[in-house]
Amino acid sequence: MKSTVHPSHAGAYFLFALVALFASPVRAQPTPADPLPSWNNTPRKAGIIDFVARVTKQGGPDFVAPADRIATFDQDGTLWCEQPIYTQVQFAVDRVKALAPEHPDWKTTQPFKAILEGDKASLPEFSIQDFAKVAAVSHAGMTVQDFDHVVQKWLATTEHPRFHRPYTACIYQPMLELMAYLRANGFKTYIVTGGGQDFVRVYANQVYGVPKEQVVGSAAKTKYEYGKDGQPQLIKTMDMILVDDHAGKPEGIHLIVGKRPIAAFGNSTGDQQMLEFAQGSADAKVAKAARLMMLVHHDDAMREYAYGADSKIGTFSKALMDEANERKWFVISMKDDWKVIFPFEK
Amino acid sequence: MKSTVHPSHAGAYFLFALVALFASPVRAQPTPADPLPSWNNTPRKAGIIDFVARVTKQGGPDFVAPADRIATFDQDGTLWCEQPIYTQVQFAVDRVKALAPEHPDWKTTQPFKAILEGDKASLPEFSIQDFAKVAAVSHAGMTVQDFDHVVQKWLATTEHPRFHRPYTACIYQPMLELMAYLRANGFKTYIVTGGGQDFVRVYANQVYGVPKEQVVGSAAKTKYEYGKDGQPQLIKTMDMILVDDHAGKPEGIHLIVGKRPIAAFGNSTGDQQMLEFAQGSADAKVAKAARLMMLVHHDDAMREYAYGADSKIGTFSKALMDEANERKWFVISMKDDWKVIFPFEK
Repeated sequence: MKSTVHPSHAGAYFLFALVALFASPVRAQPTPADPLPSWNNTPRKAGIIDFVARVTKQGGPDFVAPADRIATFDQDGTLWCEQPIYTQVQFAVDRVKALAPEHPDWKTTQPFKAILEGDKASLPEFSIQDFAKVAAVSHAGMTVQDFDHVVQKWLATTEHPRFHRPYTACIYQPMLELMAYLRANGFKTYIVTGGGQDFVRVYANQVYGVPKEQVVGSAAKTKYEYGKDGQPQLIKTMDMILVDDHAGKPEGIHLIVGKRPIAAFGNSTGDQQMLEFAQGSADAKVAKAARLMMLVHHDDAMREYAYGADSKIGTFSKALMDEANERKWFVISMKDDWKVIFPFEK
Repeated sequence: MKSTVHPSHAGAYFLFALVALFASPVRAQPTPADPLPSWNNTPRKAGIIDFVARVTKQGGPDFVAPADRIATFDQDGTLWCEQPIYTQVQFAVDRVKALAPEHPDWKTTQPFKAILEGDKASLPEFSIQDFAKVAAVSHAGMTVQDFDHVVQKWLATTEHPRFHRPYTACIYQPMLELMAYLRANGFKTYIVTGGGQDFVRVYANQVYGVPKEQVVGSAAKTKYEYGKDGQPQLIKTMDMILVDDHAGKPEGIHLIVGKRPIAAFGNSTGDQQMLEFAQGSADAKVAKAARLMMLVHHDDAMREYAYGADSKIGTFSKALMDEANERKWFVISMKDDWKVIFPFEK
């Protein structure tokens, strides 16, 4: 017999192929790709994957409804590099320099004099009042749109002094993967930063995939006014609403989110209360619930920086390390847990 | 020839049916159902539908990306009934009565005395200080969870004095449809209320489909503390962060959302600035952009209440009406625009 393909059979095969295509998620079960390729296969990585499996397992004892899958991430030192100085402080310093020609008196007035003379050593010695003066000229007295534009332009034209890349490129590849992995599993990812809420909102979506409404940060009041032509505008002031650090982190999360996170990520003493808040009650039932608390430990001077208890920036005190061990929080070793640190290494 | 169905043909038909099923959204194009069935066919309804069509038309001149489709709704008088007294004020009054046995001094101390003696007429005459005293005992000094439970219990056991339904049933069916219609078109719907953020968050998801993180309201600081057994908790205080009314509405939207709404809905002078903010700049390009501003006018004494310029609650001043007309905001007549007011009428 001659082997022929009957037209109606050809049609059936075509249709079958189409159905197979539509039904592929059920029929084909390829090994899932590693969701965290930049993480070494350590107990920390296994712990993250185990946590996500537990809270997403429908009907399981640790299942958490998607609406309550809130994950909060500190930024400085947790999502991007905070050394040798906080990026936003560098922005403020550069802003003072840019505005100096309009303010000749700054040449002889502290703290502006120190900044204009490039006296970097004195920066960490600034008092709160010194910082407030610098913040007032760099972060207030303008509309929220104007501030947005100034920050955008600065980010586009400034490099990290060691890595010679934009600050927004000096972000941690493993953390980007972790955020994406959580979002793919129904989590809402929030940034909860001691940095300025309006500052971080400028680039959070583009850099981290976090929309403006999911950025919790230090915030001052804005003032509603009518500008030229009577258009409504919001002017940034120095009247602080939220200092989003230490206890201010859970307080800020309540203000902006109104839910308790089930996963929280930080790297310093400023994140202690946020992680405690995520871990929750000492009540037996809640305490047994699956929660993920993680601290990034900067121990990789070769690829990034090594600092901890003695650092003024991103202090990781012995008390915090003790609490992390006692409460079984994951302490991530950048050296041992991360294959890659920055996206530009790849 | 005998008419038979060949097995492989039967399989082909079965497969074809399956494919047709999968492909049905492309093949079948039924007339879309009316998204606003409780609205009469007035120019206001047509205007809402036109606005949504314009901002969602990919490639059109008024297209707005889904991430920027922010719609903000006042609550009292816009989403639910605010007469004869704000629901949250009734809650505070009832809370004072419930706590009175533990506070024998209240029998002789104002403003508690007036509340306990049922002197309703004096309520609108309370000073700010009087309200602060009542708020302090009803809204502060407890954990956010305890407050949540107290409000839940009160809502479950209290009726509106005229409609004899739970307060959460005295919501406006046409506004529920409008919120659902906007969400179906990629909008994020926010409640922006002069009422307490923590109060409204208790029921916003269940009643309006608005999750806690999309409730902007008047808010006081919370204080992070360790309770018994050392568990972290947030205590409500009276230290106000945001009075979310008048200019406080755009300021609160910036704090919590960080984006300018493209649609805003209110009913009183307290919503004026929010609507101006949504309408945006006098800049020609922005001013021509599609924006939707709407005020509910309570002119239906038969089915709900009729009040406006002279009302202490939900004041709709002549100045606001003039501004609405001048700026071409939609003024909704409850009598003429709404077929149904409450869900329980249906």
